[in-house]
Amino acid sequence: MCRNEFELKAEFMTDTAVAESVSEGRTVRVDLGARSYDIKIGRGLIDQAGQEIADVLPGARLAVIVDEAVAGLHLKRFSASLDAAGLAHTVARVPQGEGSKCFREFERLCDEVLGARLERGDAVVALGGGVTGDLAGFVAASVRRGMSFVQVPTTLLAQVDSSVGGKTGINARFGKNLIGAFHQPVLVLADTEVLDTLPIRDFRSGYAEVAKYGLLGDADFFAWLEANWTEVFKGGSARDEAVARSCRSKADVVAADELESGRRALLNLGHTFGHALESAVSYETERLVHGEGVAIGMMLAHEFSQRLGLIGADTVERVHKHLSDVGLPVRIQDIPGQMPPVETFLDIIAQDKKVSRGALTFILTRGIGEAFVEKGVDPALVSDFLKEKLET
Amino acid sequence: MCRNEFELKAEFMTDTAVAESVSEGRTVRVDLGARSYDIKIGRGLIDQAGQEIADVLPGARLAVIVDEAVAGLHLKRFSASLDAAGLAHTVARVPQGEGSKCFREFERLCDEVLGARLERGDAVVALGGGVTGDLAGFVAASVRRGMSFVQVPTTLLAQVDSSVGGKTGINARFGKNLIGAFHQPVLVLADTEVLDTLPIRDFRSGYAEVAKYGLLGDADFFAWLEANWTEVFKGGSARDEAVARSCRSKADVVAADELESGRRALLNLGHTFGHALESAVSYETERLVHGEGVAIGMMLAHEFSQRLGLIGADTVERVHKHLSDVGLPVRIQDIPGQMPPVETFLDIIAQDKKVSRGALTFILTRGIGEAFVEKGVDPALVSDFLKEKLET
Repeated sequence: MCRNEFELKAEFMTDTAVAESVSEGRTVRVDLGARSYDIKIGRGLIDQAGQEIADVLPGARLAVIVDEAVAGLHLKRFSASLDAAGLAHTVARVPQGEGSKCFREFERLCDEVLGARLERGDAVVALGGGVTGDLAGFVAASVRRGMSFVQVPTTLLAQVDSSVGGKTGINARFGKNLIGAFHQPVLVLADTEVLDTLPIRDFRSGYAEVAKYGLLGDADFFAWLEANWTEVFKGGSARDEAVARSCRSKADVVAADELESGRRALLNLGHTFGHALESAVSYETERLVHGEGVAIGMMLAHEFSQRLGLIGADTVERVHKHLSDVGLPVRIQDIPGQMPPVETFLDIIAQDKKVSRGALTFILTRGIGEAFVEKGVDPALVSDFLKEKLET
Repeated sequence: MCRNEFELKAEFMTDTAVAESVSEGRTVRVDLGARSYDIKIGRGLIDQAGQEIADVLPGARLAVIVDEAVAGLHLKRFSASLDAAGLAHTVARVPQGEGSKCFREFERLCDEVLGARLERGDAVVALGGGVTGDLAGFVAASVRRGMSFVQVPTTLLAQVDSSVGGKTGINARFGKNLIGAFHQPVLVLADTEVLDTLPIRDFRSGYAEVAKYGLLGDADFFAWLEANWTEVFKGGSARDEAVARSCRSKADVVAADELESGRRALLNLGHTFGHALESAVSYETERLVHGEGVAIGMMLAHEFSQRLGLIGADTVERVHKHLSDVGLPVRIQDIPGQMPPVETFLDIIAQDKKVSRGALTFILTRGIGEAFVEKGVDPALVSDFLKEKLET
């Protein structure tokens, strides 16, 4: 499966789960009982996609939902691989960008899948980034009340985050990802070679989520990233390892809490602030992309934790240094253009779905790799903190 | 809970499940592990709805989705009951009729629920018939990837069929119920008194599903219906019992097969033909309502079973007599207006979701109460049979 040999790093030998995933050729198993599935990771995997899918879904017909830009880069190879495996498929293209996660596209794609006469045992395949995966996943969840779903994520962000865990959805006018379903894929194929075609800003954005896994629960991984991030950006085995380890982290959390009632909330480290920032700039990606929002959000989460006396300045500085080193923004002021007043942020945060009965829920931290869920955060503290951050 | 005493019928004493549901005051428990819930059945239950909901969802805020016609009849009482229990709620009205099960209404209602700032632990309540329940259920399943859901079905059809089992959904241009989710309610309140306000044609339509439970797996129940159907139509304890026993039948099948991979398909007795008939008249309810399609469909399923040598003419005659007695249509020719050619029917049936890899799946029967799933039905046999039925 995996085409590149893995150089074992001393830091990893202590981590049984990672060692296992490596020895299996970088297959990460997401353990969810009857809904368990594999994430396969490797360079050039797209050329084997047909066979991999046929192994899991013999005889299935496919509706490939693909981002228009991704189609230009990778569809030909992907389609050829499906043909070689004898898998009949239709292709539905979606315009690039967050705007496609809307009710209109959802309806259009549902009709496309039904129009192709796909049955329940057939599959929807998402070929693209997070937008394509979220949208196609909600289509797969909803057509005939649930079809099989295969993810072929083509961005780092999608490979390490949105393709793991079964969250699918579209945006509503009240906010992002507010309409959707939990719907697990039957297979995820993460070709790390296709990431070579990503603009550096997109790769960096995905890297924010990679760093997040270290920050939320794996200090060793964060230390490894500090030492090896340039190799991750270059490609090769360090990149494969970073993707695999991120998927393993997320898979472990998801397996423990599939429907996000508790521990899974840790994955939202940096996301409450991050989503608020994305919303504040009306999701204008020229100003801010998701991972950049997460990077600034993670900084804010650490600074807020420092304010609450949970961590010292040295920890905040270490996070700041690493995120800055890789080129991610770390302050609200790094976002070009004007920011709305603090009241707007609080309003967005209150409408965010990480809210339980009025009290604010935040992911805070007691150190690198020691994030925790705090459900009773006083809105006044958040307000004061954000006001200061917006002004300085 | 239940306001009417139940007169035990000798026929029922042999059925432990029914005896239990009765002794519990006509509460039918749907056993689905962590997603288990109660169906409460009784006259005037709507006045206790607030307290019942507060018992299951203390402190929840509610979005009541109500059919416009039902709102005129029952909303005032229902709302008063919620107020009495201290449950804050907003109301969203949907136009009456199948046309509301569309993407537009789905989007509008999702926005209404989000606009009311309901959180994940809050609930969507469906007050109305099957259309309202299916639509509101899909909204509940999708907003924030799943909110709590309460069903207060106000038609016989909804009480005995659509409110049990967690199927939710909307229609697509390729067919009915093709977009949706499996999403279980946390509580179902079936007030049998509100059925007094139903037009007789609607009550009869629901009764087709009641008879179905006898025909598919409970010969004793069918015999009891033959003897007691006039009392069921009048109201009182026979009606409550018919609703409870129908819910119990469906609940047992659903518990055994929540996601409809096998046994649950039995519930489609009469529905493959029935849906095709509804589609053939473009869902014009002046010509055919759902239960009427099911009644004719059940007759066709029995006649087709007779054609295949599975049952004798006496069984077909018995079904024919009972459905005719209650006033349900039993022949395709009972539907006013022109019917499309047989090819159209086969096309609709092939597009129906009860299809597996090209072969046709039908629910056939070996006698009253002995329905079974036949997955390998030859389309040519169906074509010949339907052609004859369309012509005679």
